Amino acid sequence: MTGAFAADTVATRIDERRWAVEVSPRWGVLGGAPNGGYLTALVGRAIADAVPAHPDPATITTHYLAPAEPGPAEVWVDVLATGRRFSRVRATLHQGGRARLEVLAAFTDLAMHDGPDLGTGSPPTLPPRAECVDPGDIGDAPAPPIRDRMDQRLPAHAWSWANAQAGGRAQVGAQLGPEAAAAVRRPGDGPADAVPGVLPAWVRWTGGEQMMPLGLLVLCDALPPAVFTLGGPVGWVPTVELTVQVRRRPAPGWLRVVFTTRHVTGGLLEEDGEVWDAQDRLVAVSRQLSLVARP
Amino acid sequence: MTGAFAADTVATRIDERRWAVEVSPRWGVLGGAPNGGYLTALVGRAIADAVPAHPDPATITTHYLAPAEPGPAEVWVDVLATGRRFSRVRATLHQGGRARLEVLAAFTDLAMHDGPDLGTGSPPTLPPRAECVDPGDIGDAPAPPIRDRMDQRLPAHAWSWANAQAGGRAQVGAQLGPEAAAAVRRPGDGPADAVPGVLPAWVRWTGGEQMMPLGLLVLCDALPPAVFTLGGPVGWVPTVELTVQVRRRPAPGWLRVVFTTRHVTGGLLEEDGEVWDAQDRLVAVSRQLSLVARP
Repeated sequence: MTGAFAADTVATRIDERRWAVEVSPRWGVLGGAPNGGYLTALVGRAIADAVPAHPDPATITTHYLAPAEPGPAEVWVDVLATGRRFSRVRATLHQGGRARLEVLAAFTDLAMHDGPDLGTGSPPTLPPRAECVDPGDIGDAPAPPIRDRMDQRLPAHAWSWANAQAGGRAQVGAQLGPEAAAAVRRPGDGPADAVPGVLPAWVRWTGGEQMMPLGLLVLCDALPPAVFTLGGPVGWVPTVELTVQVRRRPAPGWLRVVFTTRHVTGGLLEEDGEVWDAQDRLVAVSRQLSLVARP
Repeated sequence: MTGAFAADTVATRIDERRWAVEVSPRWGVLGGAPNGGYLTALVGRAIADAVPAHPDPATITTHYLAPAEPGPAEVWVDVLATGRRFSRVRATLHQGGRARLEVLAAFTDLAMHDGPDLGTGSPPTLPPRAECVDPGDIGDAPAPPIRDRMDQRLPAHAWSWANAQAGGRAQVGAQLGPEAAAAVRRPGDGPADAVPGVLPAWVRWTGGEQMMPLGLLVLCDALPPAVFTLGGPVGWVPTVELTVQVRRRPAPGWLRVVFTTRHVTGGLLEEDGEVWDAQDRLVAVSRQLSLVARP
């Protein structure tokens, strides 16, 4: 692995069950807190080192117990069971003597899964990248560090909906300059191809480095919340729990992601993600439980 | 709580972090192994007792490490963090000195979630119950014990697809008598309202007892696998990991469930569930990672 992701997720074994990691400031969202998918990937690197026969996360669930900060941390790993196909692992990210993330996962070697391909799914419909919006091109506020780690291209309707919903209050809204803010669409103004609750995008690492399975954990937590496209009184959207299933090693090239929120009930919501590679193959699905804070 | 579910999930505190439970034989699937959702609910009862301010599973993830058996067992509970809205909990089902299930969950009090309701979801389309098939009415093999715990009504197309796919080899297929087996449809023969990969049903406890939030964990793991309706070389479908998000306490009356598998990749698949109550409200969503075994 090369590139910022590989460099910023190095996990160094300390003893039988502890790994030293460094939470990099380069994956911060607005406000400076490290991205939750990045923190999960950091834990994942330690797990992959603990169970080398099974380096890929078939399914990984993260609970965010307390905010983590840039700086040194430790990952404690307990291997619960190991079989031919899966290693079951529990892991905790500790920082400053406090548990910040709790992870439960089944790691595997994706290359050994040669069973049938079936299903009705297909990649998301997206305009060509040249017709999409680069989030970095909007607004006059400084972009958060994580924006420099990945190239994103959103359909104009999705980006303007997301920002309109944020209304300058939430973090993503801070990206909007006055002119862009005046021009944004409100839910209901979108073109016919805009589907409420659905946010698709093109994504890759900046520089185009190969996306590894653990990198997909970051992609599944790096876009504006799809709930912004539903309208309604939504402020910030903290993640309670994130589960990612990785299915294949991605082919080289741009990835397409799509995030969907169908059910907001009493302020609780799911955000379901799919990641597709340049060969039109599904490479990951994700689901978050999140909470909407009223604006 | 009354009824078999309440009686068969009693968890008795032993000490600070251990609960005694009895894995009942009344929740066995064909072959006798206890249903995975039932085992998760058993762990959930112990968790609810450990964090009484937060009795409901907002999100609960189970990894099946080894088969459990009817008989005594212990649940070990670690409360990782407690806030106003959520208690984060890790728990293990131990039996015969061995860990069988590992659980990571955020419990809450569903009554305190009074945020917005939004979204595009709607209950599944189902024929009236009188036009649906009662799985107990088909076949000459003895039904597994769990069939006596719940009433199920499946659309005829879904039931015949599921059984045709099982082809008498898999467990659910054993329910088919010779006449029914001759009459079943093959994938592609279904009526216009049958959607490949989608399996809807009416469900309630036998006797009609009120469904509590923890009971929904059983419902999310109790129907024939939706992948049977996709066609293809699918034998048995073991669950690797199950996550259920409970959103509301269900209203009294029959529930509608719908399970969907969109992506089978190299033999790995997700099964996404929704549970709706008699007042057309979403009460739970679920997602499994499963594995198809070739027939």
